[in-house]
Amino acid sequence: MPTKKQLTCPIPQSDYPKITLAHGGGGLLSNELVDKIFAPVFNDPLLYERHDGARTNVKTGEIAFSTDSHVVKPLFFPGGDIGKLAVCGTVNDIAMCGAKPEFLSVGFILEEGLPMETLWQVVLSMKEAAKSAGVRIVTGDTKVVEHGKGDGIYINTSGIGQIISPTPISPASIQTGDAIILSGDIGRHGVAVMAAREGLQFESHIQSDCAPLNRMIEALFDENIEVRCLRDLTRGGLATALVEIASSSKQSIEVLETTIPVKPEVESACELLGLDPLFVANEGRCIAIVPEKAYDLTINTMKRFACGRGACRIGVIEKTSGSPQATLRTAIGTHRLLSLFSGEQLPRIC
Amino acid sequence: MPTKKQLTCPIPQSDYPKITLAHGGGGLLSNELVDKIFAPVFNDPLLYERHDGARTNVKTGEIAFSTDSHVVKPLFFPGGDIGKLAVCGTVNDIAMCGAKPEFLSVGFILEEGLPMETLWQVVLSMKEAAKSAGVRIVTGDTKVVEHGKGDGIYINTSGIGQIISPTPISPASIQTGDAIILSGDIGRHGVAVMAAREGLQFESHIQSDCAPLNRMIEALFDENIEVRCLRDLTRGGLATALVEIASSSKQSIEVLETTIPVKPEVESACELLGLDPLFVANEGRCIAIVPEKAYDLTINTMKRFACGRGACRIGVIEKTSGSPQATLRTAIGTHRLLSLFSGEQLPRIC
Repeated sequence: MPTKKQLTCPIPQSDYPKITLAHGGGGLLSNELVDKIFAPVFNDPLLYERHDGARTNVKTGEIAFSTDSHVVKPLFFPGGDIGKLAVCGTVNDIAMCGAKPEFLSVGFILEEGLPMETLWQVVLSMKEAAKSAGVRIVTGDTKVVEHGKGDGIYINTSGIGQIISPTPISPASIQTGDAIILSGDIGRHGVAVMAAREGLQFESHIQSDCAPLNRMIEALFDENIEVRCLRDLTRGGLATALVEIASSSKQSIEVLETTIPVKPEVESACELLGLDPLFVANEGRCIAIVPEKAYDLTINTMKRFACGRGACRIGVIEKTSGSPQATLRTAIGTHRLLSLFSGEQLPRIC
Repeated sequence: MPTKKQLTCPIPQSDYPKITLAHGGGGLLSNELVDKIFAPVFNDPLLYERHDGARTNVKTGEIAFSTDSHVVKPLFFPGGDIGKLAVCGTVNDIAMCGAKPEFLSVGFILEEGLPMETLWQVVLSMKEAAKSAGVRIVTGDTKVVEHGKGDGIYINTSGIGQIISPTPISPASIQTGDAIILSGDIGRHGVAVMAAREGLQFESHIQSDCAPLNRMIEALFDENIEVRCLRDLTRGGLATALVEIASSSKQSIEVLETTIPVKPEVESACELLGLDPLFVANEGRCIAIVPEKAYDLTINTMKRFACGRGACRIGVIEKTSGSPQATLRTAIGTHRLLSLFSGEQLPRIC
């Protein structure tokens, strides 16, 4: 583990100020990245075995397994960076399966010419996010592509978690009358990244919501709440999650526009950028669908966590007549049918 | 599963001849890739659950977990393509941990403008490789980057396997007198890729050795062979594997140059390209280190498999005096100390 003293990059500028193709070649320079940066920072005994894989244990045989590649642009944005995002993205996907994330793999695709210091900062950030989520980075891989064939850093994280939910977490489990709870205000991640990319300055600084949600989700199971369905609101935002859940569950969903928290500065930024906050990506928000009788306990449990402080009910599972759909009851009482968008609202947001 | 009729790409040229940024946006076009290409081809029930992760079972709690990103250039080469390589790469890494690979994740990073037909061919190839290895592709992710920020397709595969070796497979397990067995001739993958990249024509067509090794490795455990150490010979080739094993095990290794099979056409191509076959990447070759008394059974078991037909002894673990090292006894009886190379012998070979 790097001490404070070592918080400057251990590969000095005078040696290798930038990533070269040889850093991905499997020889001495590849080993130097592992020995000086990855192994001491991630500091897991499994990384020191220098195998091409990690040999480890899960408590029972029931696991969740997930993968995500991250190509966010720019690499650093208010509230996070690609390293934090890569850890949180996979941690949250596993949590949404009703599992406790335990082990992560990391696959880097680095572009030749990347400043070594940038890699160092991203790796430190991954370490911090992994610590905050309580997961171990146990295996990894690094490839280098020529300048102009990448964009600084792409990171794949895959993860394994232990299933902790006694019942299946799935759209198929939801029932008429269930409460739909949103964990907090929406739209911040997408707007923060977009503003950083375009060099926009908003009056108040909008920070990404990027955060690991797993400890909050684990607390729901600790409280024996019969969670029916979980979904994090990444690409496509809240609206896409609702449409997909309605479609998979064959149940209808109605949410109330006035109950969905959007910060005023996010609202104005979305207007300026021509975005609909309902479709903007979040990286630290989810919905939980629970039986009505578990509503109070769920809200109170979520509110114990920073990432759930803004938890609130946004709607219910409706009795379905006809084809299942997700609708938004607007502030003025009209109904808007939600559907998947066909274009690219925000490219490279995660 | 696509029938023969469907072996043309199910997204017609007239709809989307090329990948667009919107195919990575999480909306309708992202779903179309999953619904029309990934889910029907990989055809695993877990993919149809449309979760962000797969919930599944492993028989016991002891697992191997590995990851590899693949950036090979060109995407297609004699004997394989990036899809086959991505499946074999992770399958082999898991097999080398003494485990039976079971589940794979796939993370695509696609470049805007990639012909849809290219993606289709790569996906079909992944399916075939997964079938041949007996592994399931159970979860995935797709991102799209702008034209000029990638190179067609990059693929990360991560995998989970069930440990089947009763003893730890590790350099630490090897003992003086153990036999070092190589599974076949070396250097073909690197040379095949390099030739395809540079448009070189060799007199006889050199095919990559790219293949899944897991069934051969599983057979060793079925025969109750006390395997001490396994290593596949990817980036850095045979020499790098030997140096790393010597260094981790603190044992010395001596291999005989005359016993290491290199096809004459590979030998000549290496001369032409200025490469040393000992350091050239393979994607379907490994070494197995076993007790001398298990030598015959190991060789005979490996030879039952196409990927092990050329299995042969190349050396022994020596009694160490002084610092551990890997040496090559040359054809003329001199000794050459092997060491890691510091440059990039062949960039983007896997």
